Amino acid sequence: MKGVGVKVFAPATVANMACGYDIMGFALDAPGDDIVAKLSDRPGVRIAGIFGDKGKLSLDPTKNTASVAAQKMLDHLGDPSIGIEMEIYKRMPFGSGMGSSAASAAAGVMAVNELLHRPLEKREMLPFAVLGEQVADGAYHADNVAPSLMGGIVFIRDNPTLDVHRVICPPGLFATVVHPQIKILTKDSRDILSDQNTLKQTITQTGNIGGLIIGLHNGNFDLIKRSLQDVIIEPQRAQLIPGFYDVKDAALQENVLGCSISGAGPAIFALSSNNLIAENAGIAMQRAFAKHNIDSTVYQSKINQEGAILY
Amino acid sequence: MKGVGVKVFAPATVANMACGYDIMGFALDAPGDDIVAKLSDRPGVRIAGIFGDKGKLSLDPTKNTASVAAQKMLDHLGDPSIGIEMEIYKRMPFGSGMGSSAASAAAGVMAVNELLHRPLEKREMLPFAVLGEQVADGAYHADNVAPSLMGGIVFIRDNPTLDVHRVICPPGLFATVVHPQIKILTKDSRDILSDQNTLKQTITQTGNIGGLIIGLHNGNFDLIKRSLQDVIIEPQRAQLIPGFYDVKDAALQENVLGCSISGAGPAIFALSSNNLIAENAGIAMQRAFAKHNIDSTVYQSKINQEGAILY
Repeated sequence: MKGVGVKVFAPATVANMACGYDIMGFALDAPGDDIVAKLSDRPGVRIAGIFGDKGKLSLDPTKNTASVAAQKMLDHLGDPSIGIEMEIYKRMPFGSGMGSSAASAAAGVMAVNELLHRPLEKREMLPFAVLGEQVADGAYHADNVAPSLMGGIVFIRDNPTLDVHRVICPPGLFATVVHPQIKILTKDSRDILSDQNTLKQTITQTGNIGGLIIGLHNGNFDLIKRSLQDVIIEPQRAQLIPGFYDVKDAALQENVLGCSISGAGPAIFALSSNNLIAENAGIAMQRAFAKHNIDSTVYQSKINQEGAILY
Repeated sequence: MKGVGVKVFAPATVANMACGYDIMGFALDAPGDDIVAKLSDRPGVRIAGIFGDKGKLSLDPTKNTASVAAQKMLDHLGDPSIGIEMEIYKRMPFGSGMGSSAASAAAGVMAVNELLHRPLEKREMLPFAVLGEQVADGAYHADNVAPSLMGGIVFIRDNPTLDVHRVICPPGLFATVVHPQIKILTKDSRDILSDQNTLKQTITQTGNIGGLIIGLHNGNFDLIKRSLQDVIIEPQRAQLIPGFYDVKDAALQENVLGCSISGAGPAIFALSSNNLIAENAGIAMQRAFAKHNIDSTVYQSKINQEGAILY
């Protein structure tokens, strides 16, 4: 690709955070997606190439979350003459539960914004990134896109209206994500869920989400630990991930604050109160998967406070 | 009652706070219960008199939440020779949904603590107050007792372990509580509830409870307003309160932040961002009840940050 352009990065994310199904997520430092983009004389968004996807993703700009997000933002800005050409570098697994399609969408709007000299704030870019991600699974939700774009721990009170809020994050909080080499489709992961739960579960889950937010606000790691529990979704999805409970037990043995499924899985995340615990948990979790003859990749990171960035 | 004693007060409370069923409550400045107590040579807790109850409450110390709470605390302190004699002044309606039995229980432990020169912190007194309230409805829950004793807005992550936390409360937050002259038994109010709800309701409720806590922490009244909604309990209980939706609409017309059932009802509460709105809402809500030929009493208050106090 020729011409002066921009290179942007948007990170992988962990949605749900145990008790925050559909309403909470956080960003990792790595992995993530890069997009290199430049202005073009041909109006609209085109994909010049996709790398790192093993040829699995379409170059059709109406089918990729990055290009759709970019096009939605261009449409909003209202100059039909603008053309953008992008190369997408997938540097993270997709179908992993780590927000791969959301990272592409976040990088897509970020690239447009940088090429056009930042007409919008990140919060203003968010709706277009969410529309971009929607092509991947049909749902309009921000629990991956918002943290990938904005960084930090993000709480989404309401997805349809994008009522999105940063949650204060105590220093010392570290994440471990272990991605096993197995496939789960987000759709299967959603279809398996009962559309009902007990009132008792609702009381427990509302108690835990409130406890988690208060714990994060107050830097109360003991409270965070007691709160990082999912009594509704995890018990239903655990069966999709062979060895899930062994991996979780391995993490808990290392004294992590909590461990659950990352997004729709199969990746599993843990949160820890320091980097050493996060590192030891990663080793233990990978070893537990290995006992089930499943290879896995381990990622460790502080909570990424920046989100999508210009290189 | 003769001899040097103490006089304590414990306030009425609003439990549930719309989206926080069983896990959240706050204290009012008034009404509330007074207890006058003194040490006695006869071991154990005795009730010398109850006033303001129209003769409805038993003087049997094993049946009153105040005396049971006091006795549980004495048992804990481990001196079987201590005797306490108390007079209970009910200055608030019972069966109202305003935490009458909880206020008595909170006042009971407060009286013991003051008579014995404060051996315990309020947090340490809490379990005995909760045990006291348990004689009223059999449940072990702190959503009225904790705010009555400790003051403020209280979040209870988990009732069985009393995992109780103060929530930061923005200046300017005012409460209106309107108590209609009708009777609902807490038991009926619980029995009416379905033990199931939809996953969609759970997502909405977890979104709202998180939004409420973040809004309170950040002093974001718009977010508090969007969050003060109960999609699970209120729709089921509204039918027990004639005119509920008219009263709620009347409050919303006055631009309150939110309006829902106080505890198990029949009292209805609203929260407002200033005292004038709280006052106007009270007038409008009372008028709406009057249109249904129901007399009501209006209470207004800032959020009481002190809880139970020594006079």
